[in-house]
Amino acid sequence: MINLFKLAEISWSDAQELFKEVDVAILPVGSTEQHGPHNPLGTDHLVAAALSGVVGEKTGVPVLPVVPVGVSEHHRQFPGTLWVPPRVFEEYVKAVALAAAGLGVKKIIIVNGHGGNTGAISQALREIKEETGETIYSLMVFPGERGFGSDSVKILKQEGGGHACEMETSIALYLGQRVLREEAVKWEPPRAWTEFDRKYRGKVSWTRDFHESTETGNLGDPTIATEEKGRQLVEAVVDEISAFIEDLKAKKD
Amino acid sequence: MINLFKLAEISWSDAQELFKEVDVAILPVGSTEQHGPHNPLGTDHLVAAALSGVVGEKTGVPVLPVVPVGVSEHHRQFPGTLWVPPRVFEEYVKAVALAAAGLGVKKIIIVNGHGGNTGAISQALREIKEETGETIYSLMVFPGERGFGSDSVKILKQEGGGHACEMETSIALYLGQRVLREEAVKWEPPRAWTEFDRKYRGKVSWTRDFHESTETGNLGDPTIATEEKGRQLVEAVVDEISAFIEDLKAKKD
Amino acid sequence: MINLFKLAEISWSDAQELFKEVDVAILPVGSTEQHGPHNPLGTDHLVAAALSGVVGEKTGVPVLPVVPVGVSEHHRQFPGTLWVPPRVFEEYVKAVALAAAGLGVKKIIIVNGHGGNTGAISQALREIKEETGETIYSLMVFPGERGFGSDSVKILKQEGGGHACEMETSIALYLGQRVLREEAVKWEPPRAWTEFDRKYRGKVSWTRDFHESTETGNLGDPTIATEEKGRQLVEAVVDEISAFIEDLKAKKD
Amino acid sequence: MINLFKLAEISWSDAQELFKEVDVAILPVGSTEQHGPHNPLGTDHLVAAALSGVVGEKTGVPVLPVVPVGVSEHHRQFPGTLWVPPRVFEEYVKAVALAAAGLGVKKIIIVNGHGGNTGAISQALREIKEETGETIYSLMVFPGERGFGSDSVKILKQEGGGHACEMETSIALYLGQRVLREEAVKWEPPRAWTEFDRKYRGKVSWTRDFHESTETGNLGDPTIATEEKGRQLVEAVVDEISAFIEDLKAKKD
Amino acid sequence: MINLFKLAEISWSDAQELFKEVDVAILPVGSTEQHGPHNPLGTDHLVAAALSGVVGEKTGVPVLPVVPVGVSEHHRQFPGTLWVPPRVFEEYVKAVALAAAGLGVKKIIIVNGHGGNTGAISQALREIKEETGETIYSLMVFPGERGFGSDSVKILKQEGGGHACEMETSIALYLGQRVLREEAVKWEPPRAWTEFDRKYRGKVSWTRDFHESTETGNLGDPTIATEEKGRQLVEAVVDEISAFIEDLKAKKD
Amino acid sequence: MINLFKLAEISWSDAQELFKEVDVAILPVGSTEQHGPHNPLGTDHLVAAALSGVVGEKTGVPVLPVVPVGVSEHHRQFPGTLWVPPRVFEEYVKAVALAAAGLGVKKIIIVNGHGGNTGAISQALREIKEETGETIYSLMVFPGERGFGSDSVKILKQEGGGHACEMETSIALYLGQRVLREEAVKWEPPRAWTEFDRKYRGKVSWTRDFHESTETGNLGDPTIATEEKGRQLVEAVVDEISAFIEDLKAKKD
Repeated sequence: MINLFKLAEISWSDAQELFKEVDVAILPVGSTEQHGPHNPLGTDHLVAAALSGVVGEKTGVPVLPVVPVGVSEHHRQFPGTLWVPPRVFEEYVKAVALAAAGLGVKKIIIVNGHGGNTGAISQALREIKEETGETIYSLMVFPGERGFGSDSVKILKQEGGGHACEMETSIALYLGQRVLREEAVKWEPPRAWTEFDRKYRGKVSWTRDFHESTETGNLGDPTIATEEKGRQLVEAVVDEISAFIEDLKAKKD
Repeated sequence: MINLFKLAEISWSDAQELFKEVDVAILPVGSTEQHGPHNPLGTDHLVAAALSGVVGEKTGVPVLPVVPVGVSEHHRQFPGTLWVPPRVFEEYVKAVALAAAGLGVKKIIIVNGHGGNTGAISQALREIKEETGETIYSLMVFPGERGFGSDSVKILKQEGGGHACEMETSIALYLGQRVLREEAVKWEPPRAWTEFDRKYRGKVSWTRDFHESTETGNLGDPTIATEEKGRQLVEAVVDEISAFIEDLKAKKD
Repeated sequence: MINLFKLAEISWSDAQELFKEVDVAILPVGSTEQHGPHNPLGTDHLVAAALSGVVGEKTGVPVLPVVPVGVSEHHRQFPGTLWVPPRVFEEYVKAVALAAAGLGVKKIIIVNGHGGNTGAISQALREIKEETGETIYSLMVFPGERGFGSDSVKILKQEGGGHACEMETSIALYLGQRVLREEAVKWEPPRAWTEFDRKYRGKVSWTRDFHESTETGNLGDPTIATEEKGRQLVEAVVDEISAFIEDLKAKKD
Repeated sequence: MINLFKLAEISWSDAQELFKEVDVAILPVGSTEQHGPHNPLGTDHLVAAALSGVVGEKTGVPVLPVVPVGVSEHHRQFPGTLWVPPRVFEEYVKAVALAAAGLGVKKIIIVNGHGGNTGAISQALREIKEETGETIYSLMVFPGERGFGSDSVKILKQEGGGHACEMETSIALYLGQRVLREEAVKWEPPRAWTEFDRKYRGKVSWTRDFHESTETGNLGDPTIATEEKGRQLVEAVVDEISAFIEDLKAKKD
Repeated sequence: MINLFKLAEISWSDAQELFKEVDVAILPVGSTEQHGPHNPLGTDHLVAAALSGVVGEKTGVPVLPVVPVGVSEHHRQFPGTLWVPPRVFEEYVKAVALAAAGLGVKKIIIVNGHGGNTGAISQALREIKEETGETIYSLMVFPGERGFGSDSVKILKQEGGGHACEMETSIALYLGQRVLREEAVKWEPPRAWTEFDRKYRGKVSWTRDFHESTETGNLGDPTIATEEKGRQLVEAVVDEISAFIEDLKAKKD
Repeated sequence: MINLFKLAEISWSDAQELFKEVDVAILPVGSTEQHGPHNPLGTDHLVAAALSGVVGEKTGVPVLPVVPVGVSEHHRQFPGTLWVPPRVFEEYVKAVALAAAGLGVKKIIIVNGHGGNTGAISQALREIKEETGETIYSLMVFPGERGFGSDSVKILKQEGGGHACEMETSIALYLGQRVLREEAVKWEPPRAWTEFDRKYRGKVSWTRDFHESTETGNLGDPTIATEEKGRQLVEAVVDEISAFIEDLKAKKD
């Protein structure tokens, strides 16, 4: 079944019609990096693409192809992790967004599946604004306390953020990705954060490679993930992003 | 059904096992650009990804996620076309290939669905060789007289190369992409090449935007495309690329 | 009176002695951009330098010269604002940090006075880590709910963040910068945020030039700023950053 | 004897006159790299400059100074080889072409003496077209089956392409370059291509340093080169390139 | 006491008034590098900032914040030396100058305290002229035989140029910087220049790291420096630069 | 007649022999820019190449091919002028020098025919030293008061520096370049330097396009140039550069 709002699957004459009606487009971006021994390496870009697809269909907004490899050098010690330097990611995303803007799309929304991409995207947003005057929007596809789906995360028992954790694993399960439950269960919890980490994370920024903190690649507890939690999280975030897009469609500048 | 050789769909511990057995990986790259009013904009990257997937499964070689937007600025006058500058494409592909090499993959094959990417890929190959000593391989996924599937192209009636033509449309049909047959038929043949073009194309290189030559975006005749032709072309090219990969696996340097 | 911990004011043989005892250094960075009609243009870099100086003396840690112009293109419509593109700022800060690391300083702390610099600094941190393995730390010099001095900000009446606001103006007053009280008072409050802004700021990122939101350059209410508030804020943040540096000095990797 | 069509040898007031009459210019580019133990290191740029000079005089078209060092890192293991990275070559050639375009020259032809430069030139052509709308032309100065002088190469006995081979050595002889016949004769034929090479060259691209395939630097058989062959090849290619330039002069866009 | 001509210390509404009256601005730049065991590491940027401040006040011209770290990699073997690559320095200075030009400042003067910055500044001047048509001026803040204050240098006994020498140390003394007289006296004179150096310096350019020539970091004789000499040098150079600025203010282009 | 010391004209096995005996090489660089209506556009690179050739033969040192287009954007308003941005020139020269260093050449001398290249060459020297530790030498090929041939310039009547002037025209005449005497004579002297120029040139740096100062492109008086003056200038400078190279050959580091 063709999704008429996936740009890759329609022809240029379809696109011509579509862009007459709508001046918004979604650009999903993610990463290909370790997500624990139990979640797929592509989790971040697969989730960004999947949820963008649903939102696109719900709102009648075209979805560009997903940018699948991002800023993940801090996971590179785990087999299967791909990554590009921040600047290369920024340039690629910026060029795709500018090409879309060149098509006359006024409001481009980067739907991002990977926290590590945030800095590079923020630079891209500034440079595009400064060079061309275009305003690009960016949001995280995963629900969060201060992001979309903020109510839905209250169902989670695990405290604090994480990686390949209760939330991400629940969503992966709900989306039917190949999650190896036994792998999730049999692994030990990750090495504790040091006292220094707990005291200063949030107040001070520094970069640490994941393998310095965890042998499995997990931060958090994937063993309590369920498909039902995933459903609630996804539905919440899809609804709220869709509502945002409706507001954006209506917005006059 | 999970394809155990799609890197994005397996976990890092799967990848660890896989790379113990095989030192080859496939990186599909393509474009998102007009392919006539009847073929999908994503034809080049969808075909590269699809055929890479089949080849990967046949040969037991992992397939990296497809790089979906390429060097297509010469199609940018057609709605829906996305593009990045050659250098940005080169940097992104180079970085992904270097990350894969960093995983210990010795033999990376770029499976390219878009002719416009060739120059940038060739630069990437040289720079990777010069900077790191690594040898990267690159091949076109579409069959061609001097490429893989050279026998199979003899079934085609259209002379010369093309775009969104008998060959590309046949393959799109066979792969079940959404091809708008009526659109293909109802459009007039493209404006003729000038005498100057016919005389010097091949001997002299120059860059021309597609809209200067064709209103539909087609070069060639998509109306004679058939799914059966597509099947023969795809099977030939998949077999020959798979045979190449088997030779490469066996190759000692 | 010479501050023996300001690197610029000591000689290389002083530095040689100093670095025998301490492997930490502070690099203050800021901006030169409008801070309302009443605060100095240099507020961000003057505050970063001044507080770094106090912290340096308290902890016996050398302070590098302040980088005075940052990522402020969104203020460029106001007279006197200087700015450099994010990438240029990133390269300059990265090079200074790498030079300091080349001196054998193991723990460099970027003390940042300007929120707009955050993305570029975060990229610098990643690139330094990836290229050299060095870990650089970065923190905001202004107190904040989730930063240093989080208790002290409870004395403020103005809600939400701001610019040239109650907090920044109080600190400027306390540091004896030339603050034009009358200018602060006589200006109208800034144009209200739109409903769209209030709904999505925090969940969605986008870039807006300041002059689109405020004629004065203020966001927030500088008229309720006092020197006493400034004193409390500065003392809190200086104490907490100093404590962090003591912890960092003691930290073994 | 002054060649009135060599730009370097005329004054700006000569150039002013010349460019009133003709809107075409030739930019020869080549390399300085090993050409076997018997041909000069400068073969590629000397041939490009010499033939451009003849063509320029024949057609009344100004010839720019030759760019003498190109993309030859794959020959760098041989003494005397100079090279620049592809991107550096591309930038230099692009800047010279843009400067010529800035003089009002509408049709610039890059006459290239070195196959290794092709990728970089092709990128330059695209970037110039995309950035400025200017169309630049590029052609190989050596005759080839699919290039200019395609009939003349039928006199050659050596099969396939080559380097410092029957063709290149013949042309060097005819142009009076210092060719060391004894060196050519006394050297052994190069190490055979492997079976893998023969099977996949043309279908798959990869980069190999020349010293991996040949101790002498030759690929092909220079011992059967003659000055007479050189004369026929040069005359054919000069005639055909000149005819192309006449067509180009007459071409209206 | 606020200097009303230091841009960092005034507000944007002050700047608005100021730039109505004057279209000139001063951008001081320097370095943070060893200046012998007796002078401060920041000598070059402290002197550039201090003298710019005096000149700014004398002429009513705004002074931008000093760029404190420059092209000093040739001093990097001495503790405390900071440096950035020439290109990074150039980009930063260029961006600051362009931002100032964007404020409508027509005549920007770079007041440079470090000879090593000269090449990079000269490139910046050319690029700014070529890209934007703006003319930027650059001058050395230290007096010199062929620079400003050429008469005043006749009071010096030391022959030839130098570093941390009679002239620089005298100026540091006069400006009240922390100069360690005993350190200056107790150190041995630097290793003699070789005969080759003496013969070709000035005719031939090459780069040598300072530690190859001197253990102390001095070139020249700081022991004969006096505060009185410093006074005469500074007054001469301040007067002459101020006269230049008055001429520049009056200059119509 | 083959010059055995022109690298382009010898083979790699010749080069192998040559570099066994000598660890010095000459890289001539110049420009292609207006030199008045009477001197050839290539004056700077033709002179650099010609004198390098003589020096190379005299001293037995190999001469690399000349880099013919340089930093001449300030002449671009005159027909026939070619130019590349400073950074592009720097990168090209740097890459060629590094390739030569990669051949084991320890002492590379850039023989420069164009003053406008100086800044870029100086940056290249620093970057090469910093990145690789290699020391590169650079000198001006034209005689000068403070350069080589300083005695010989005393025969000149024209005061101050110049362009396409008594000195450059004399050298062009002596080297048999096509100098149009009548053109030199019939043109008016260039517009006078302004008083501002005369007062500050040398003390202050700024960039001015040549056409702002002179309609002919000359600065100075070419009408008093003679071939005999050219002979004396060339002989002096060739002798002194050759003596320098002998000293350099003997130099142990």
